[in-house]
Amino acid sequence: MEKSALQIARYGYSPKLPEILRGNIDGIVAEKGKATRAKADEDDLKKLFPNTYGLPEVTFKKGKNADVGRKVNIGVILSGGQAPGGHNVICGLYDAMKKANSQNTLYGFLGGPSGILEDRYVVLDDKIIDEYRNTGGFDMIQSGRTKLETEQQFAVCTEVCHRHDIGAVVIIGGDDSNTNAAVLAEYFKAKGEDICVVGCPKTIDGDLKNESIEASFGFDTACKTYSELIGNIERDANSARKYWHFIRLMGRSASHIALECAIQCQPNVCIIGEEIEAENRSVDDITRYIADVIAKRASEGNNFGVCLVPEGLIEFIPSIKVLISEINDLIASNEAEFNALATTASKIAYIESMLTSSSKKVFNSLPESIEAQLLLDRDPHGNVQVSLIETEKLLVETVKKRLAQMKKAGKYNGKFGTQTHFFGYEGRCAFPSNFDADYCYSLGFNAFMLLSAGFSGYLSSITNLSKSADKWEAGGIPITMMMNMEQRHGEKKPVIKKAYVELDGKPFRYFVSKREEWAKETCFTYPGAIQYFGPSEVCDGTTRTLQLEHES
Amino acid sequence: MEKSALQIARYGYSPKLPEILRGNIDGIVAEKGKATRAKADEDDLKKLFPNTYGLPEVTFKKGKNADVGRKVNIGVILSGGQAPGGHNVICGLYDAMKKANSQNTLYGFLGGPSGILEDRYVVLDDKIIDEYRNTGGFDMIQSGRTKLETEQQFAVCTEVCHRHDIGAVVIIGGDDSNTNAAVLAEYFKAKGEDICVVGCPKTIDGDLKNESIEASFGFDTACKTYSELIGNIERDANSARKYWHFIRLMGRSASHIALECAIQCQPNVCIIGEEIEAENRSVDDITRYIADVIAKRASEGNNFGVCLVPEGLIEFIPSIKVLISEINDLIASNEAEFNALATTASKIAYIESMLTSSSKKVFNSLPESIEAQLLLDRDPHGNVQVSLIETEKLLVETVKKRLAQMKKAGKYNGKFGTQTHFFGYEGRCAFPSNFDADYCYSLGFNAFMLLSAGFSGYLSSITNLSKSADKWEAGGIPITMMMNMEQRHGEKKPVIKKAYVELDGKPFRYFVSKREEWAKETCFTYPGAIQYFGPSEVCDGTTRTLQLEHES
Repeated sequence: MEKSALQIARYGYSPKLPEILRGNIDGIVAEKGKATRAKADEDDLKKLFPNTYGLPEVTFKKGKNADVGRKVNIGVILSGGQAPGGHNVICGLYDAMKKANSQNTLYGFLGGPSGILEDRYVVLDDKIIDEYRNTGGFDMIQSGRTKLETEQQFAVCTEVCHRHDIGAVVIIGGDDSNTNAAVLAEYFKAKGEDICVVGCPKTIDGDLKNESIEASFGFDTACKTYSELIGNIERDANSARKYWHFIRLMGRSASHIALECAIQCQPNVCIIGEEIEAENRSVDDITRYIADVIAKRASEGNNFGVCLVPEGLIEFIPSIKVLISEINDLIASNEAEFNALATTASKIAYIESMLTSSSKKVFNSLPESIEAQLLLDRDPHGNVQVSLIETEKLLVETVKKRLAQMKKAGKYNGKFGTQTHFFGYEGRCAFPSNFDADYCYSLGFNAFMLLSAGFSGYLSSITNLSKSADKWEAGGIPITMMMNMEQRHGEKKPVIKKAYVELDGKPFRYFVSKREEWAKETCFTYPGAIQYFGPSEVCDGTTRTLQLEHES
Repeated sequence: MEKSALQIARYGYSPKLPEILRGNIDGIVAEKGKATRAKADEDDLKKLFPNTYGLPEVTFKKGKNADVGRKVNIGVILSGGQAPGGHNVICGLYDAMKKANSQNTLYGFLGGPSGILEDRYVVLDDKIIDEYRNTGGFDMIQSGRTKLETEQQFAVCTEVCHRHDIGAVVIIGGDDSNTNAAVLAEYFKAKGEDICVVGCPKTIDGDLKNESIEASFGFDTACKTYSELIGNIERDANSARKYWHFIRLMGRSASHIALECAIQCQPNVCIIGEEIEAENRSVDDITRYIADVIAKRASEGNNFGVCLVPEGLIEFIPSIKVLISEINDLIASNEAEFNALATTASKIAYIESMLTSSSKKVFNSLPESIEAQLLLDRDPHGNVQVSLIETEKLLVETVKKRLAQMKKAGKYNGKFGTQTHFFGYEGRCAFPSNFDADYCYSLGFNAFMLLSAGFSGYLSSITNLSKSADKWEAGGIPITMMMNMEQRHGEKKPVIKKAYVELDGKPFRYFVSKREEWAKETCFTYPGAIQYFGPSEVCDGTTRTLQLEHES
């Protein structure tokens, strides 16, 4: 493989650890806090996790740790979508375990959770690890979307761990994967297996966070990459002064990415799904809001602007949510007949004829291209694939119509030229920012500290993240403490509560305090490309979301 | 305006000038070379440019220059699409003229060439200039697409120049704008006006180059930005291993951008328009080539990859070129009737009924969405807007069909999941790379040296660009020397010859020598984000195209 100059230069970067994790590894000890409790559904959770519910929080402190050098083999798994920094979690884990005992062996299971089920792995050594330090992507061992959730799967995991004398498994994943990590930890405890499970919080979406997990890794780098592009487009819009750019941003459910990018780039419009849902707004409401901003700017001669739309928006619009759910059910229960229809037009007519009258009205209000997208291939759970719905084009169409009406009524007199964009894959595998490189390395290093001390069913937790890395704190959070019970596919299940944009949180309130000015004026900010070298204020900062959340 | 940390840090960057332009400005003199000749159509050009044809090339040398301090007011115009570094051209020009005489005044005409026609301008001063040093975009004075080409317009230009006592005009633009700069220079000379015109070679497309103009500015930064994104997507493809990504890249005619990005990123497939044209290949030929690469990779278990498609490809396919030309003519000559048709389907049927039988066949072979795109709004010259045609989606559709046939025939057994992308606006306004920041600043500085010495009808020329900036050479090239006569809208006109990818040139030959390996193996290279700080090999290099062209 030919390597880029940046990749070679990044090999030389030494990720910064929290002060407490520096120095001799046998000088770090775990201090247990009080027993923890989930915020909801305690009784259900206690029943489901008799061995791992209510564990204490853990904090690392200076002290003598005689056990850390005990030999242990560890398996590591990357689960779900790519996020910048995944390789550094593995590097941090590897360096810590080799520092503790050079005989420790790290098994990298290949292709995600299916790797452990099929016993496909690579033994990670210096040569492999050094190829991937501070690089993006999950290509070192690849990822996958298989879920570890059945007893049968757990039995296979046990067998594979025994085969390689693996005493601990580190699962790097999002909310679902870490939920499953907790269930696996409980299973091992219940069966009397001496195998620890520790999770690491990954997702660019930023929706895996709470009081103890301040950020999921990858969010910083992904948002910086998207903000680079948004800023470049803003600058283009402000130079050419003839287009409105509608930009859809990845983020399956929560609108954290759109909010962070808006705060970094100050576009004219940014729609936040959680607000739309809370205020029960329709496509028409959103359309009118955007059209009013466009008309106001046009009245001052500014026929250009930038509008951010979160990918998940479509599901936050209550009427569309109902429509999608009806379509999902109709397709599932008429699958053969539906699939036999040859043309898109006939599929549209077929589904339309069976919708409830209110959903039919909503369906008919959508442009034909979006109707078609709502009928595209389902995911393995029978749900529409939200990422395939071009919400940015939907809004361009509806806004165009609305502006034509306003023009007729004498309320708008401008030009509406448009360009649309979707950013998602562009940011998931970027070289991790210094923040993510440090944070991920620390998460991995810290994961080893937890499991070497026998903690299982924990998430690796590095906190105080808005400060410089030396001031970060290291510890572990029992996963059950973040759980509640939710309906999933008709069943009540324990899950880690997803973190949505809080409408009374500081980042959203800051956005609200600014958005009218950003809509009217041109307040674009141009973050530029992620920098890995140079002045600290350019290359070491983290997200505005974290900064605002930590402001006192 | 709130400024990003990078923008503030970039204010501190001092662009590097060629050694010859450093030091005292009155120690630089112009040395005239031999009279120049165009490579073709000399007689026509001599007639059209009686006063400016055959001027000598100019090189700057050390020597005494008593005239440089003579007071002069200058007008500057940004013309056409944005390209990173435009602001630095203006900054270099400004610094040079102030260095020569602090009384010199720079008029920035607003919104492109229409700014001089309407006498809309801003007098540029330290405060304004300092806000834009080393930044992307053209927002300092904006750009526009009005063409300066009629005698009537030239008369207005003369009047405006007189009004402000402007003795020189700098036009920053692409091939068309610089052609017009030459015509304007000739006009001024013919009328006995003492007003010089100097052009600067701008375009991200990279198609304004020849022996004397090694690169147009912006190409380096735009390609680095696209390559960052392509590399990130490659890494995602190689991690998830389930998608083929089809990426269309801006570049209206020539495929320089796609070729440069391919050399930087080593994707599995990159289509070069010039090769398709030279070998008279059809959509079906291209489809088969891509499908064969996909099938070969699938046979080794690799159901993923990356395919680059230049935006201009569609016009390089001879049969499609004919089709587009027929459609352009049909729409132009039946405009009212065509526009009165209400639905896309009826427009398609209407045009289809009038196509020649061979074009009808080509038209019918295209997916309906592409048929519709070929009928979309024309540009002001009645041409289809190539950037609106989603060639990447066209190829996904045709390749999908072809793979289905191959599967039936037992020649393919894989999965073909796809994602499509289009990158254009993302790169045109990025903060200029160190190379573009230096190159542009030098072009602007050098433009002043040319016009202060009375040279008119010249392009500012900085050469030896594959070496470090101190070794660059500075001079001027008579624009007429790059011209030939071409048919444009039924008329024979003098134009700067566009530079296409040369099929016997080193960059293309390098690509050809590698592409089979890149197709089969996964040789992805991940350039990462443009770096402005850090090790020189990371932040100071320029394009692979230039490096390869300059290799001996």
